[in-house]
Amino acid sequence: MRPQDLIQKKRDGEKLSKDEINIFIKGVCDETWANYQISALLMAIFLRGLDKEEQNFLTAAMLESGETLDFSGVGKPKADKHSTGGVGDKTSLIIAPLAACCGIAVPMISGRGLGHTGGTLDKLESISGYNVNLTTEKFHEIIEKCGFAMTGQTAKIAPADKTIYALRDATATVPYIPLIVASIMSKKLAEGLDALVLDVKTGSGAFMQKFEDSKRLAQALVKTGNNFGVKTEAVISEMSQPLGKYVGNATEVYECIRILRNEAEAEMLPTLELAVELTARMLILSGVSGSISDSRLQISNCLESGKALEKFRENIELQGGDPRVCDEPEMLLDKSLYKFEIVANKSGFVSEIDTCALGNAIVGIGGGRARAEDAIDPAVGYACEKYVGDEIRSGETLGILFCRNENQAHPISEKLQNAYKISESQPQKIELIREIIQ
Amino acid sequence: MRPQDLIQKKRDGEKLSKDEINIFIKGVCDETWANYQISALLMAIFLRGLDKEEQNFLTAAMLESGETLDFSGVGKPKADKHSTGGVGDKTSLIIAPLAACCGIAVPMISGRGLGHTGGTLDKLESISGYNVNLTTEKFHEIIEKCGFAMTGQTAKIAPADKTIYALRDATATVPYIPLIVASIMSKKLAEGLDALVLDVKTGSGAFMQKFEDSKRLAQALVKTGNNFGVKTEAVISEMSQPLGKYVGNATEVYECIRILRNEAEAEMLPTLELAVELTARMLILSGVSGSISDSRLQISNCLESGKALEKFRENIELQGGDPRVCDEPEMLLDKSLYKFEIVANKSGFVSEIDTCALGNAIVGIGGGRARAEDAIDPAVGYACEKYVGDEIRSGETLGILFCRNENQAHPISEKLQNAYKISESQPQKIELIREIIQ
Repeated sequence: MRPQDLIQKKRDGEKLSKDEINIFIKGVCDETWANYQISALLMAIFLRGLDKEEQNFLTAAMLESGETLDFSGVGKPKADKHSTGGVGDKTSLIIAPLAACCGIAVPMISGRGLGHTGGTLDKLESISGYNVNLTTEKFHEIIEKCGFAMTGQTAKIAPADKTIYALRDATATVPYIPLIVASIMSKKLAEGLDALVLDVKTGSGAFMQKFEDSKRLAQALVKTGNNFGVKTEAVISEMSQPLGKYVGNATEVYECIRILRNEAEAEMLPTLELAVELTARMLILSGVSGSISDSRLQISNCLESGKALEKFRENIELQGGDPRVCDEPEMLLDKSLYKFEIVANKSGFVSEIDTCALGNAIVGIGGGRARAEDAIDPAVGYACEKYVGDEIRSGETLGILFCRNENQAHPISEKLQNAYKISESQPQKIELIREIIQ
Repeated sequence: MRPQDLIQKKRDGEKLSKDEINIFIKGVCDETWANYQISALLMAIFLRGLDKEEQNFLTAAMLESGETLDFSGVGKPKADKHSTGGVGDKTSLIIAPLAACCGIAVPMISGRGLGHTGGTLDKLESISGYNVNLTTEKFHEIIEKCGFAMTGQTAKIAPADKTIYALRDATATVPYIPLIVASIMSKKLAEGLDALVLDVKTGSGAFMQKFEDSKRLAQALVKTGNNFGVKTEAVISEMSQPLGKYVGNATEVYECIRILRNEAEAEMLPTLELAVELTARMLILSGVSGSISDSRLQISNCLESGKALEKFRENIELQGGDPRVCDEPEMLLDKSLYKFEIVANKSGFVSEIDTCALGNAIVGIGGGRARAEDAIDPAVGYACEKYVGDEIRSGETLGILFCRNENQAHPISEKLQNAYKISESQPQKIELIREIIQ
């Protein structure tokens, strides 16, 4: 079957068979389909749709296009968390050591930042020496030793996704749930998990800003995970303001270590709250805990005893990083940075934060990537001081920008200031956890 | 505006502005749009549609993407004919000398065969030495001298179309009228014409097989031509059987010269009929004739006096070809070819001919191209002996295949035989000219 015949079928609104979807993914992997044919089919899929069965065929084909990991020898339940991405979204660095402390093996395959959202790999690399390009053998070995490891996606896992995702990004075919589900789940299902918890963001800094869209995505992800035999739940969490205190890379690692050291500042508490919720659900789904209250107890024991911090230290050592960041988290903060206060231009209440604009402003000074090939500056970042619902006086600090020099600060300080909407009446505070999808 | 933002707009069903369509075509020409972005937009256009205004913007942008010819110095009305393509469709070689004889300048830019349909350039190249790759200067010079010239499209005329057409062909986005209109008309409008007659084919060998689709296409083409200031008409002609006697390249030139020599065999008369109809309309639109009857009189004078043949001879000489074909058309027929009779396997009436299948069978022995880069064998071909409505006895000849050897004949003879449907009751004869769209 020629690519154009298969494209024509979907163009005309017909359902694709399992064989046809396999032909497509095989063509993507062996490059017998040209990129322009792949993108034409993606647009036809976007506009004509995929039904639930086609979505499963696509997920399976993408999963089977590459290798799957096998941690059955590890003797523990395997679980992971995946987030749809946000600003200041740094929970992985807390969840992985916490879950590992509680007896779960966490084979965490993460991504890099793109657009206004950050990426776990970029954050980890701000720890001097930390290696996120593990071989499959090394990944196994570290998980065996300390219960978790964090690495980038190898070319061997769901290789079709890499090509398809890059094309979707360049052809306006990203925000379609069956394509998102196939992309996320083909990679996560390759990790050989028993349980998976999804953090589906909603709000101005999320990929899906409307709650109803986020909920539909969460439902589709959960259903697909369970269909493929992985116990899956989703937490829909608010991303209409940055999560926790810091946005950036080194600054976010700093926040995580402060939390693991039981030194969380008030602004960092939402990060802890979400990390605990997600970890607790991983524990239940994996069968190492029977209830949320029991999970919370296990988690707070790990935190308060310092075991979670030690677990992270162990991991940093195994992945080649400098473990002294666990003792002196301040070493992550570059003292030479220029600090610029973003102040309110009127008095009132913070009623809205354009979190996407805020994230993009930080990308603009090197805190993230506009294009996949861009380099980042791990030190720069932003510290939030005010959140939605907070009262503010004109001239008072909304947040602090950490950048290289005054010239860099100038063009983006206005963008940051404009990201805050200040109203006369006090709006409701934001509930971090919106809904659990089981 | 990034390509993905423009694609998104059409994806969401919004209308594109003139500026946006210009950005797209500019991006195609300067290659700042990747092929996968072009094809994604083409699929979005196919599924979301272009309205009449967008269709005009696209046609204008594609036209303006390249150079336009200027024959204003020629002192004659300029007119051309364009066919949507068919099997045995060879009228250009009769129309061009006839129209030139009647005082029109014909700057005919033609194409090569692709798929089951033939191409004027391939046919002309079966005349030894005939050059279809004229420079713009040479094209002008020959038109000045003999009133017509026939050449291939230069890279400078509507360059965007070349890229877009190749992508449409590979991504199942060909059969959408606004895209077809922009593709055809951007090239024809570049010829600097006063008048244009379109031969829109309908039936089993046509690009648009259903009459209603052909009619919609004809109407859109005529409207666009007139919008752009070129007097335009369309003739919808039957392509549910090959036009005239021969299918092939050298064999079709042979048929045309026999017609120009007033030696037309009975099977060749439909070719003459259609050529006269199309030429007559060119004469009226160009103002060199006031009525169809007057046009027909002028045309038959040119034919019967031998002036049309002399005009073709003059053109062949100017384009470097061997003019002896005008005196000895048999030299075009390769005597060494193997002739294989296709016979009826039952008695009855020819009720249908799968003209696309017949065309493809001839492509299969080198008479045309499955892919643009394929080479052709100019000598091979097919001579029709029976048409729709003809009575036939089992074992009687339907047509004769001219091929290289028996081995070549064998696999396609069955395809040719199967292209004919033979029924017990006599069907209606086919009316060649279905409708005139003004």
